[in-house]
Amino acid sequence: MKKIGIADTTFARYDMYESAVDELSKTGTGYEIERYTVPGIKDLAIASKKLIDGGCDIVMALGMPGPEAIDKQCADQASKALLYVEVETGTHIIEVFVHEDEAEDEKKLKELADSRAREHAVNVYDLLFRPERLEEKAGQGLREGHPDVRPLR
Amino acid sequence: MKKIGIADTTFARYDMYESAVDELSKTGTGYEIERYTVPGIKDLAIASKKLIDGGCDIVMALGMPGPEAIDKQCADQASKALLYVEVETGTHIIEVFVHEDEAEDEKKLKELADSRAREHAVNVYDLLFRPERLEEKAGQGLREGHPDVRPLR
Amino acid sequence: MKKIGIADTTFARYDMYESAVDELSKTGTGYEIERYTVPGIKDLAIASKKLIDGGCDIVMALGMPGPEAIDKQCADQASKALLYVEVETGTHIIEVFVHEDEAEDEKKLKELADSRAREHAVNVYDLLFRPERLEEKAGQGLREGHPDVRPLR
Amino acid sequence: MKKIGIADTTFARYDMYESAVDELSKTGTGYEIERYTVPGIKDLAIASKKLIDGGCDIVMALGMPGPEAIDKQCADQASKALLYVEVETGTHIIEVFVHEDEAEDEKKLKELADSRAREHAVNVYDLLFRPERLEEKAGQGLREGHPDVRPLR
Amino acid sequence: MKKIGIADTTFARYDMYESAVDELSKTGTGYEIERYTVPGIKDLAIASKKLIDGGCDIVMALGMPGPEAIDKQCADQASKALLYVEVETGTHIIEVFVHEDEAEDEKKLKELADSRAREHAVNVYDLLFRPERLEEKAGQGLREGHPDVRPLR
Repeated sequence: MKKIGIADTTFARYDMYESAVDELSKTGTGYEIERYTVPGIKDLAIASKKLIDGGCDIVMALGMPGPEAIDKQCADQASKALLYVEVETGTHIIEVFVHEDEAEDEKKLKELADSRAREHAVNVYDLLFRPERLEEKAGQGLREGHPDVRPLR
Repeated sequence: MKKIGIADTTFARYDMYESAVDELSKTGTGYEIERYTVPGIKDLAIASKKLIDGGCDIVMALGMPGPEAIDKQCADQASKALLYVEVETGTHIIEVFVHEDEAEDEKKLKELADSRAREHAVNVYDLLFRPERLEEKAGQGLREGHPDVRPLR
Repeated sequence: MKKIGIADTTFARYDMYESAVDELSKTGTGYEIERYTVPGIKDLAIASKKLIDGGCDIVMALGMPGPEAIDKQCADQASKALLYVEVETGTHIIEVFVHEDEAEDEKKLKELADSRAREHAVNVYDLLFRPERLEEKAGQGLREGHPDVRPLR
Repeated sequence: MKKIGIADTTFARYDMYESAVDELSKTGTGYEIERYTVPGIKDLAIASKKLIDGGCDIVMALGMPGPEAIDKQCADQASKALLYVEVETGTHIIEVFVHEDEAEDEKKLKELADSRAREHAVNVYDLLFRPERLEEKAGQGLREGHPDVRPLR
Repeated sequence: MKKIGIADTTFARYDMYESAVDELSKTGTGYEIERYTVPGIKDLAIASKKLIDGGCDIVMALGMPGPEAIDKQCADQASKALLYVEVETGTHIIEVFVHEDEAEDEKKLKELADSRAREHAVNVYDLLFRPERLEEKAGQGLREGHPDVRPLR
């Protein structure tokens, strides 16, 4: 039995945790899930660290940075801290960030958040249970949430 | 008995420590508070580290970066160092920064500093004593100091 | 027998792994290759760490950042994490990033990705087996993927 | 007997060390001073590390970044490295940087460098010997070198 | 006998190693030199780490970043990694970077690279053998490669 940690925030405007868990349940079995909710994206690194120290084999870090310049700076800080935790613990953390200015209206942003969480949930499953599926898709221009782009030709 | 560390600065133009302590006292019991005041926000990381090494279970780092480009750069440096201390010590540090250009006049800035310190004080209490309250509010668009935004629809 | 790790992504739009492996095979012998495919460039650092922990003597990290500002920020985060892994493990990681805006059309971008992967594959071989070749070319204005520039005169 | 380390540079255009030492001597006793001079601000982190490893209880890092964009980038790198040393060693490093574009002419810049070094020297003394003085001034809008600003009202 | 490590790149357009070695030989004795050539500036950190682990008492890291925005970003990454190695190993690394846009033509750029390498070679010698010379020049506005500026008055 593997353990998947999911860290998320009260700042986000969409519950990506539900999307991720639903998609994981459709993708396969052999894992349990532990959730850790924090106020904002800058708290995701320590949440991920605590999840990993508590036995998680992989972590999803779900966040929705705002549209302002200061939000971009916070997202940069949060991402770098997540990368640091990954390397220090030797454990994958899949960052699932949806920036508020990535879609033109709330409905599209909601769809983006849902689909990105779902597609990264499959990545998490693949990294844990079937890494050969990722290798088969190397260099294929996959995008999570947005439509895939085709390989160069 | 838990210990909450509060690091703050002589640079700030409002005593957020008083707001945080007052709000904590209204929120619950079971903790004691230790304070560490430093000159500026770049000193908050080492102050937080010393508070944690001294037994604090969680830290609030209170700061008010100025409005200039160099102030933004200092805030970025300070935030990254706080994130590093968090991950190294495995301990939450709740960053409570109020940027001088976040409000249009002194009165509004003061209100923002007061309310942000109070709302993050509740986050600190929740992380320590009742994490299930944060989980219930995941994805709800909560904002500390500013009005909450509604979830996407 | 040395072990060369190659980390790559499903996000990339060209399979640089094939170019690298083909060039290595033309360059010399004495090594085996281990591959680790991840979703995006921000996952290359932990992939490289895992490859090194698994016994690789050197790693190539292959990625193709997109053209937007947020992509540049992600590339910066990814690069810094790769540098951190290098220093922590005492092991070379040769970053082979091709930015989508480095060439004017898809065909040229594909050629750039192919040639950069190949030229860095030779660098990897040289670092492992014949470092004196690099020393001979010090200060010669070599460029991987783009034409070399001449030394200053 | 406490030991105060002072790291400074040959790049700076004013000898802030003399200002700091003079102000410390007027402020109190109970300490000795060790100096370490390096070429530029990017060397201050390793100088501070060596001072701390040599027994210093606190360090002042004195530098004068130039006015160009590249100088700002160097200052950012230097500051981040100083923060890292602080946290790793658990020791305060008070960064005293004066940017060449902070004052309109050489005379004012010289006065700024002198007064900032002096006011931070008092901060160093307070952190070492009388931290309660900093706590009393928390949130009071203190500025080192420039005039203090008043608390918000 | 001290050991000076020199890391340089095949990307650079001038052989600063020769300048540095020539100047060191004119400055004094008591040291031997070890060289490590890598492809680009982002490889200088791991090269420096390897030189230090191999017994070097100090390292010069020679590089020539290109003139584009992406080159500036690479230089920033490289510098931060060098700083990290310095602090982790407790060893000075003197960064000698010459940016391609620092001079108006190739001839001036070549002269700049030569003189900067030479002046920093003397800094390296001073740090190793006669640190009192640096202390005497503290705050004197020294510049490596460019003309010194005078102290503020």
